[in-house]
Amino acid sequence: MSLHLIAGGAGFVGVNLAAALLDLGHEVVVVDDLSRGTLSAMEPLRSHISFTFREADCSDPEAFDQAVGELRVDEIWHMAANSDIPAGVADYRVDLRQTFLTTVSILDVMKRRSIPVLHFASSSAIYGDHGDDLIHENIGPLQPISNYGAMKLASEAQIRAAHEAYLSKASIFRFPNVIGIPATHGVILDFVGKLKRTPERLEVLGDGSQQKAYLHVDDLVRAMLHIRDLGGKFAVFNIGPVDDGITVREIAERVRDRQSPTADIHFGEGNRGWIGDVPRFRYSVERLLGTGWSPTMGSRDAMQRAVDEIIAQEVRR
Amino acid sequence: MSLHLIAGGAGFVGVNLAAALLDLGHEVVVVDDLSRGTLSAMEPLRSHISFTFREADCSDPEAFDQAVGELRVDEIWHMAANSDIPAGVADYRVDLRQTFLTTVSILDVMKRRSIPVLHFASSSAIYGDHGDDLIHENIGPLQPISNYGAMKLASEAQIRAAHEAYLSKASIFRFPNVIGIPATHGVILDFVGKLKRTPERLEVLGDGSQQKAYLHVDDLVRAMLHIRDLGGKFAVFNIGPVDDGITVREIAERVRDRQSPTADIHFGEGNRGWIGDVPRFRYSVERLLGTGWSPTMGSRDAMQRAVDEIIAQEVRR
Repeated sequence: MSLHLIAGGAGFVGVNLAAALLDLGHEVVVVDDLSRGTLSAMEPLRSHISFTFREADCSDPEAFDQAVGELRVDEIWHMAANSDIPAGVADYRVDLRQTFLTTVSILDVMKRRSIPVLHFASSSAIYGDHGDDLIHENIGPLQPISNYGAMKLASEAQIRAAHEAYLSKASIFRFPNVIGIPATHGVILDFVGKLKRTPERLEVLGDGSQQKAYLHVDDLVRAMLHIRDLGGKFAVFNIGPVDDGITVREIAERVRDRQSPTADIHFGEGNRGWIGDVPRFRYSVERLLGTGWSPTMGSRDAMQRAVDEIIAQEVRR
Repeated sequence: MSLHLIAGGAGFVGVNLAAALLDLGHEVVVVDDLSRGTLSAMEPLRSHISFTFREADCSDPEAFDQAVGELRVDEIWHMAANSDIPAGVADYRVDLRQTFLTTVSILDVMKRRSIPVLHFASSSAIYGDHGDDLIHENIGPLQPISNYGAMKLASEAQIRAAHEAYLSKASIFRFPNVIGIPATHGVILDFVGKLKRTPERLEVLGDGSQQKAYLHVDDLVRAMLHIRDLGGKFAVFNIGPVDDGITVREIAERVRDRQSPTADIHFGEGNRGWIGDVPRFRYSVERLLGTGWSPTMGSRDAMQRAVDEIIAQEVRR
């Protein structure tokens, strides 16, 4: 059993990962500045004897080092990042600090302390718009169109250089759109919130034809642990479902049907939601499938489950 | 005629670019913090009526903005970067600030002031080690093995995202090894310096078999101006000679023959000079050749000319 540190572990993916690592018998320490993650998201974890939470800003090497303190950490999972892509487009400093300088700071502390293993939550946003081309891990050119994607790519680059110099093992997980709870952002939560405020009307940005693939967070966590078990020295994997995704229209209809069946849905125009959002995306997970992993849910199943989970979460509040 | 700002314009490439832009009748303002560039490197420029120098740290947005001051800049050439790759491997903060945060800061000021056109000195170091594969602009994966290469890739990514949001035009020049004067670093200057100190003995790091392609700075500047004239909205070009390069042994022998013909050359072991240095490199410039540019000198001619220029430079001092 090992001591795992999850940077940004009070966020959506982090708390699900923490629960899975605890289930496997590991010790888990979460370091998070609670700027996006919350104490309540960690509530189910805090009673666990092998769980520790330390509040610190992971983008500040001194603060992060102090948070690690006396702990002898075996592996770091870097899940700390901005999660509001439009906010990062409006002000580049958001992703600079939260998405990139967290990576720099974590690597700094890993070097000082000789912590050998890093797992990093990267993103499909590093690729940019490739039209109808299937996006595999070695595709080029890499042309992220948001500061978020740019700073994830910057992080990958810095980790690659650190691996050359001092890291023993690094895994790069290129996340798809991930859904589930505790939801903090995203299209489903957005629709649920809108219908809570106006139960008879759901406004949708764009014409609803935008199609995306979604992975449930349970499958994401299974994939990350699977990749860890493969034991590669420098592993880069797209993670995602195997289907081509579902449309925004389908999500809107599902939320409406489950939450407020008599509501009218009103669509806007165009198929690009915001600057930095890639309209169409064909994501290859062949490399990961080749290692024996497969998702238990396609985009539709994942969405339907997440819709019910998020409605339950929002009604509880 | 336009007003061109060269960030890092007191450095090796910057002063050559400034001279070429002045020759074409443009106005040129150099902004440089003189941490690597020097006043003496700009000496030949400073008498020109269309040349201005302003001292400022390009990695500080406020300082850079203040340096731009009342000027109505049409195009920015971003040549500011760390040039000491091993120093950047030893301390990541060197490339973080000098190679990457310069880019971030320059983009910040371009957005504020609506300066529409950016030309960026990127590097073949963004690619990492691809063995015998020919490195073209769209190759993947991108796995830089130095912090310098990582922060050049990070800069490219940030520029790509800025182009999506507000820049009108961007060109990315992926530089090869560039030689010429005023030389501030590099293998030729290193050998010339060693032979000045010990005229009878030249120590070479590695076994001398390491092979690299070199471009003369005159050809580099011609290539950048050629790419600017193509007028693409987002242009990415490898720049380099068309040959496979020359060995360190050949450079050492040429320097010895021209500077100190009776010296003995002593080689070390291995073919990798330092961490972050890619031993073999096959660089494709097909995209650039396809636009009608070609180098006037191959690696050998470029090296022979640069050896004479650098010996003359060092003897003058």
